Amino acid sequence: MTQLSDRARQYARAPANAERFLAELFEFLRIPSLSGDPAHAADVRRAAEWLAEHMRGLGLDKVAVMETAGHPVVYGEWLGAGPEQPTFLVYGHYDVVPAAMEDGWSTPPFEPVVKNGRIYARGATDDKGQLFIHVKALESYLKTAGTAPVNVKFLIEGEEEVSSPNLKPFIETHLDLLKADVCVISDSSMPSIDRPAITHSLRGMTYIEVEVHGPKQDLHSGFFGGAVHNPALALVEILSGLYNPDHTIAVPGFYDDVAPLTPAEREMIARNDLSEASLKEITGVPAAWGDANYTLRERVSARPTLDINGLWSGWSGPGPKTIIPAKAGAKLSSRLVANQNPHKIYELLKARIEALAPPTVRVEVRLLTTGEPALIPFDLPAMQAAVRAYERGWGATPTFVRGGGSIPIVADIYTLMQIPVVMMGYGLDDDGLHAPNESYSVEMFQRGIETAIVYMEELAGLKG
Amino acid sequence: MTQLSDRARQYARAPANAERFLAELFEFLRIPSLSGDPAHAADVRRAAEWLAEHMRGLGLDKVAVMETAGHPVVYGEWLGAGPEQPTFLVYGHYDVVPAAMEDGWSTPPFEPVVKNGRIYARGATDDKGQLFIHVKALESYLKTAGTAPVNVKFLIEGEEEVSSPNLKPFIETHLDLLKADVCVISDSSMPSIDRPAITHSLRGMTYIEVEVHGPKQDLHSGFFGGAVHNPALALVEILSGLYNPDHTIAVPGFYDDVAPLTPAEREMIARNDLSEASLKEITGVPAAWGDANYTLRERVSARPTLDINGLWSGWSGPGPKTIIPAKAGAKLSSRLVANQNPHKIYELLKARIEALAPPTVRVEVRLLTTGEPALIPFDLPAMQAAVRAYERGWGATPTFVRGGGSIPIVADIYTLMQIPVVMMGYGLDDDGLHAPNESYSVEMFQRGIETAIVYMEELAGLKG
Repeated sequence: MTQLSDRARQYARAPANAERFLAELFEFLRIPSLSGDPAHAADVRRAAEWLAEHMRGLGLDKVAVMETAGHPVVYGEWLGAGPEQPTFLVYGHYDVVPAAMEDGWSTPPFEPVVKNGRIYARGATDDKGQLFIHVKALESYLKTAGTAPVNVKFLIEGEEEVSSPNLKPFIETHLDLLKADVCVISDSSMPSIDRPAITHSLRGMTYIEVEVHGPKQDLHSGFFGGAVHNPALALVEILSGLYNPDHTIAVPGFYDDVAPLTPAEREMIARNDLSEASLKEITGVPAAWGDANYTLRERVSARPTLDINGLWSGWSGPGPKTIIPAKAGAKLSSRLVANQNPHKIYELLKARIEALAPPTVRVEVRLLTTGEPALIPFDLPAMQAAVRAYERGWGATPTFVRGGGSIPIVADIYTLMQIPVVMMGYGLDDDGLHAPNESYSVEMFQRGIETAIVYMEELAGLKG
Repeated sequence: MTQLSDRARQYARAPANAERFLAELFEFLRIPSLSGDPAHAADVRRAAEWLAEHMRGLGLDKVAVMETAGHPVVYGEWLGAGPEQPTFLVYGHYDVVPAAMEDGWSTPPFEPVVKNGRIYARGATDDKGQLFIHVKALESYLKTAGTAPVNVKFLIEGEEEVSSPNLKPFIETHLDLLKADVCVISDSSMPSIDRPAITHSLRGMTYIEVEVHGPKQDLHSGFFGGAVHNPALALVEILSGLYNPDHTIAVPGFYDDVAPLTPAEREMIARNDLSEASLKEITGVPAAWGDANYTLRERVSARPTLDINGLWSGWSGPGPKTIIPAKAGAKLSSRLVANQNPHKIYELLKARIEALAPPTVRVEVRLLTTGEPALIPFDLPAMQAAVRAYERGWGATPTFVRGGGSIPIVADIYTLMQIPVVMMGYGLDDDGLHAPNESYSVEMFQRGIETAIVYMEELAGLKG
């Protein structure tokens, strides 16, 4: 067995192959597959077709771009290890969040370039680069041994960045096709290259939009200023009413279902603490902020949040414009932790906003997306096999961490398919995903492929 | 004398002339002379050139597009009435505020159309349509009598919508050229066509921009949410701290210089009161708002305000985007009343915002523009001549009102040239200036020309 993975790793490391892997990833990154913007629907499909074509070229079976009510799912499988070996399901997503030069990119976001050993492109780390690791790991076995230690299935969706509205029904109607013994997801990160991490918890999400309507059209502020409630001010008043002075969330019932952290959990989280100096260094903020009853690492991973993701009203172009805007809006999202129900949180937020809305304006609250939080036990055999894979393939023992982000489908796979979900994130915390100049280390990509190769071997024999 | 104005009025009313006047105005309205947007600088100049060329065609002298540090001034004069007659200075502005279909226009804002007796176009009432009235009034004398009862000078600027930063220095360096006995400005409105009004007071302005900076770039809200002060939230907290629960402005010293309204003034304002029903009808708001110690008309004309004119932060496009924005901003403007100093108000606002700014973000306050408030006595002879002009030319006795808007230059002309400034607004309160679907009544335009014709006659002999 060891020989098989050694040959596969040599193949992946060979300069000609390593260079080709990058060139292939660049083709994938050039497709602006923005799932949240209807104007890019054709690009999203093009990314799916590209990936399917690539899988076919490697000899996978049943490769298909499968329809959903939204963007399609890419499926492919290789079952040559036979029924006595476990089946390994790779979940990933080929869609990305928006990116534009005017947001502060130094190079065009869909023209990947390598600078100082990092690939700069939207989707480089989230998640095209990371999902491609598993494709290249399987290729490395098939092109050397002609076989692999375990069976492999790929489930690559195109709606993760809009909270996977159609993936749960897709899984429900394709349980037989997707049947597997373990699911691996590489869509998270580690603090530094020598400190690999396996994420065993993710935050869920409730994402809403609030719109305040005042006059039927923008008014001249000189003619009506003083007698009309400015919708931008009404919005500001409502939003400020959602927070307490101690930075906790002023929404009745919001914290009710949060399971309190045990001393043991807090001790484990403390091993991976985030210092204020490091937070300031990474983000550039002048000081930390938040609920003083929790450490910084707890705040960003084990506690729920409420963030304003966008604000808009009236005139934001150059120069003055003396209007009372007709409306004002905000996007708000809450990161949720285990036991919080995203739909219940939506109802609580809506009720609070409606209670804060004055009679001088009309307020609308809309639910955009939800995602369940997830918490996976880390003593499962597939989790422990992942520990060994990092030790052999990456060269370091991983720690188990709670992730602050959301992969809404993790909880669904865990519940619907009743298999462990192993989150082996091959990104770095400062890759800048969702931000301008998202990047991905070439070395992380290469070590990820080797670790994925070893993980397949460590899973062999674990069936049942 | 009467004969001269009668012949001029007949000329203006003749269908062929009335139609041509409109066609000429449409040419003027088609030029998108947005003074606040550098991308439209060439259009602003084109509007100036168009107006100058038009004045030359009517036989005016010394017509010139005169340079300033910003957009140019259009000057032209006709001094044929001789030195024994007074000189009448017309001030107006050929620039406009922004307009775009996506703001809710039913027809393109720079393609004027007449629907139901109203001209729809940006600038139709503010101020191209109203300033053109005086051009056509002078034409009506010159093309019939070959002379006019008074001397006329035109001072038409291109920066009124950005608070006339260069007009005061222009007037100071051209006091001889502009020398006159009275200044008329048509850039305001009346409640209905049978209730003409002369504005004797205008509010001043302090316009600022506030920007809150947090992280050096947008952050993933899953990774940092809970530990970083969201700049949009910090902005919301600062802005909500600028208002008291009773809707007054929570800026120490803000009201200090406001001269209290006397019972007599309140009684005069009450004659022209604004009912809540009428406010709701005009604006579409569900209820009135503001300082309950003052009537609605007082709030919109005789009391200072603070309005949020624009808000921006993060993602406002379709769908969700899970970021902590790097920054958030707002435009804020304060309408000021007599005795308030715009620069002092800026210092007070800045100090209050800086006091509210938490150490977790960096806050910048910038002054965009200022304008002085103005209050003109209404017993001056030129004011009383205007009353007679409305009675004869318009067919109704005007009332004196306080305007809620700002024409920053009114106070400057009054102070620098030491002549009365008579604000004969020929617009209607619901013309929708600065808003989508700005419009101007064709009948108001035509009656305005006749009133302007009579006003020249009423001014004759008033010299000294």
